Amino acid sequence: MLVNGVTSDSISIRDRGLLYGDGVFRTVCVRRGIAQHWALHYQKLHHDCISLVIPCPDFALLTAELELLLTQHRDAVFKIIVTRGVGARGYAPSSTAQTTHIWDVAPLPVYPKHYVALGIEARFCDLRLGCQPRLAGIKHLNRLENVMAAAEWQDANIPEGLLLDVEEHVIEGTRSNVFLVINQRLVTPDLSRCGVAGLQRDRILAHTPVEVRRVTVEALLRAEEVFLVNSLIGVWSIRALAGRRWDDFPVAKMMRDMLAKE
Amino acid sequence: MLVNGVTSDSISIRDRGLLYGDGVFRTVCVRRGIAQHWALHYQKLHHDCISLVIPCPDFALLTAELELLLTQHRDAVFKIIVTRGVGARGYAPSSTAQTTHIWDVAPLPVYPKHYVALGIEARFCDLRLGCQPRLAGIKHLNRLENVMAAAEWQDANIPEGLLLDVEEHVIEGTRSNVFLVINQRLVTPDLSRCGVAGLQRDRILAHTPVEVRRVTVEALLRAEEVFLVNSLIGVWSIRALAGRRWDDFPVAKMMRDMLAKE
Repeated sequence: MLVNGVTSDSISIRDRGLLYGDGVFRTVCVRRGIAQHWALHYQKLHHDCISLVIPCPDFALLTAELELLLTQHRDAVFKIIVTRGVGARGYAPSSTAQTTHIWDVAPLPVYPKHYVALGIEARFCDLRLGCQPRLAGIKHLNRLENVMAAAEWQDANIPEGLLLDVEEHVIEGTRSNVFLVINQRLVTPDLSRCGVAGLQRDRILAHTPVEVRRVTVEALLRAEEVFLVNSLIGVWSIRALAGRRWDDFPVAKMMRDMLAKE
Repeated sequence: MLVNGVTSDSISIRDRGLLYGDGVFRTVCVRRGIAQHWALHYQKLHHDCISLVIPCPDFALLTAELELLLTQHRDAVFKIIVTRGVGARGYAPSSTAQTTHIWDVAPLPVYPKHYVALGIEARFCDLRLGCQPRLAGIKHLNRLENVMAAAEWQDANIPEGLLLDVEEHVIEGTRSNVFLVINQRLVTPDLSRCGVAGLQRDRILAHTPVEVRRVTVEALLRAEEVFLVNSLIGVWSIRALAGRRWDDFPVAKMMRDMLAKE
């Protein structure tokens, strides 16, 4: 682990990342010594920092630290956190605060192989995401909604839960973005009011036509395919959800091949 | 500072308090060696931990640590934070995690004396609080809404801003609860959908009749008095807000005397 470029596994108890969740993060998948889509991850980190008016560390600085870590870890998950740092007491950001940036390294998760080939079982979470346009889309450190949602079930055979917002629209998975195939066209939920806009979602939007709109539960259960994406799982089709079953995943396979290509 | 009872000023970068804001806190006012309303603070800490399914450290344990700190600090702000601790990667709380509890000590803030006698100028914040009944009322570590609201203005002559929810109801100050006097009766906003239920608000509710309901901006600006409470400021009347001025604060004075009595 690195904290502000120095080997360390701890931060100040006065860091605003702890006190207020005042920061952002990214999860980078590292395979065979390559940090996948690092430049895109940095773009999103920078974008999210700007959204919260946190100065983002330079690309060159973070890349140098990343490369140092890559010399020791060839297959791993790298998490980069940027917080507003240690400031004066109180919610108002002080102009003198120096941001904190943290690298943490964890083993790559191992998922059952059949998740990719056969799809997964998913569930609807009871928790409803609050609507907060000011923070929507940002991968910030205020993640209690995700924590409470993920705590709803323990069944290891259900690897992901879907989150609706207070108006009962489908938004995302607890740690993934969701895509649907409706009339042979790709659809993904609008994230302008809540949810996290993940990197793999961005990549799909950049490479293929997708309709971004509000999605009802009914529309999702009628869809020809539903699949989940994030940087660690890649693409998982949903095989079973709320009594509905899906057996064929041709579009998900195309997306998986497309995302793997670059 | 104490972390899990040991003198320390740092926590693990894998603490869920940092990663997800997965924890709760209280701010205790210490004057002349007395931690004001400590038993009530603990009750609220315990209640908030239960709401998030975080095991709360024992009252005896935290009180012993508090008393140790009181031997060194006679006039100060003590902040107690309880997080879900270090767990396995991912949002789902792991059953093996040990909670982290942190004491931090800061100087008592010094406010202009006329804030109490003459009231303060306040403003309405632009940010609207999202509606999240699952987390409403809890003093948790997901405080980005408060941070973004407090960042909206720099004028030191305006010591507090009022927050509305997405439906334009008045909820609270960025770091205080709000009370109104309407037809000579006390009113305070309902916090079942968003906001933090502070200890001084609880004390007023416990000692005097208060109507808890939704409050519109119009109702607030028509009120005979408006005042803000928290454990550090005590009671501040609002003197000026959005073009409206108030000059007499008899009910706020009664509440201040009542809160000071015990």
